[in-house]
Amino acid sequence: MAEKLIDQTCEGFVSLLASKAPIPGGGGAAALVGALGAALCSMAGNLTLGRKKYAAVEPDIRALLEKGERVQARLMELVDADAAAFEPLSRAYSIPKDDPGREAVLEEATKKACAAPMEMLEQCARAVELLEEMLEKGSVMLVSDVGCGAVCCKAAMECASLNVYINTKMLKDRVVAEALERRTDELLNEYGARASKIAAAVTAQLREG
Amino acid sequence: MAEKLIDQTCEGFVSLLASKAPIPGGGGAAALVGALGAALCSMAGNLTLGRKKYAAVEPDIRALLEKGERVQARLMELVDADAAAFEPLSRAYSIPKDDPGREAVLEEATKKACAAPMEMLEQCARAVELLEEMLEKGSVMLVSDVGCGAVCCKAAMECASLNVYINTKMLKDRVVAEALERRTDELLNEYGARASKIAAAVTAQLREG
Repeated sequence: MAEKLIDQTCEGFVSLLASKAPIPGGGGAAALVGALGAALCSMAGNLTLGRKKYAAVEPDIRALLEKGERVQARLMELVDADAAAFEPLSRAYSIPKDDPGREAVLEEATKKACAAPMEMLEQCARAVELLEEMLEKGSVMLVSDVGCGAVCCKAAMECASLNVYINTKMLKDRVVAEALERRTDELLNEYGARASKIAAAVTAQLREG
Repeated sequence: MAEKLIDQTCEGFVSLLASKAPIPGGGGAAALVGALGAALCSMAGNLTLGRKKYAAVEPDIRALLEKGERVQARLMELVDADAAAFEPLSRAYSIPKDDPGREAVLEEATKKACAAPMEMLEQCARAVELLEEMLEKGSVMLVSDVGCGAVCCKAAMECASLNVYINTKMLKDRVVAEALERRTDELLNEYGARASKIAAAVTAQLREG
C-alpha cells in the first residue's frame, strides 16, 4: 500500500483502524483527532472573517488562520509518519530472539517510533495556543466549535502520550526514555490544563449564557 | 452536495471542517472522533483473536467486536445526520425576524438539531462499556489502543455535549431543554469518569508495569 492513509475516505480510515491491519493505530488516530482540533479553530476563524462586528480583529484572525493551517497540515502528515515508523518496529520485533543484532535494531526502531507522537504533542500544544486566542477574538457564534477544538487537541495529546510511553517503556537507554517522558508530561500537564480551561469557559458560556 | 461527508477523504474532511462551509462542524467532528474510539476497541479485539494465550476469551471478544461494529457504524452515520439537521436550522435563522412564523420553525429545527449529538452521547457510552471489557479481556499488547479509544470516546462525548447545550440554550420549551441537558450531564458524568478510569489504568500499566 503506497497510498497515503489520509487519502483514504473517512469511512475507509475508520474501517482500517478497526481491522487487524497493523496501521493505522492509536498514534494515527491521535494525529487525526489533533488535526480535527486545529481545523475547528480555523473554522471559527473563517466564519468570523467578513463580519462587521469583528472587523477590528481581522488581521489577528488572519494570522491565526495562517498558523493554524500549518499545524493542521503537519498533524495530517503525522498520521502517515506514525504509520511509517511502525513498520520497521514491527519488523524488529519479528527478528528471532537469539539473533545478536536484535537488541540494537529494536532499540533504534523504538526510539524512532517516539518521534511522531512527540511531535503530535508539540503541534497540539500550538493548536491550543491558537484556540485560546480564537476564543478571545473570534465570533461568539462559534464558541462551541472552539470548545470542541480544545477537547480534540487535549484528547490527541493524551493519545499521543500513551504512544510515547508504550515505546519509552521498551527502551534500554533510560536517559533518552526519561527525557522523552519528562517532555511528554510537561506538555500534557501545561497544555492539557489550558485546553480544559477553554472547554470549561465555553461550557459556562453556553450554560449560563 | 449529495455526497456523504464520510465518503470524503480524511484530508478532504479536515479541510472542509476548517473552511467556512457550514458543514461539517463540531458535531460532525464529535461523531467521527467517537467512531475512531469505537474502531480502536475493535482493533484491539481483532488483534487479540487467534492468539493462543487468549483462546479462552475468543467468544467474548467476538461478541465485543459485533457490538463495536454497530456502534462504530452508527457514529459514522451520525456525522452526516448532524450535518443534515444543521441545514434546516440555518434556514430557520435566515427567516426575517419580523416573520410571525419564524419562532415556531426555529424552535422545531433547534429541537431536531439536538437529536444527533444526543445519540452520539448514547453510542459513545456504549463504546466505553465495550472498551472496559476489552481492557479486561483483550491482549495486553493492545492496551495503549484501548486507552486511546477511551480518550477518543470521552472527547466525543464532551464535544457532543457542547452541541447539545448550544441548541438547548436557544429552546423556548424549557421542559424539553432541561430534560435533554439532564440526560447529557448524566451520560457525560458517568461515562466520562469511566473512560478516564480506563485511560488512567492504561497509563499506569505503561508507566509502572
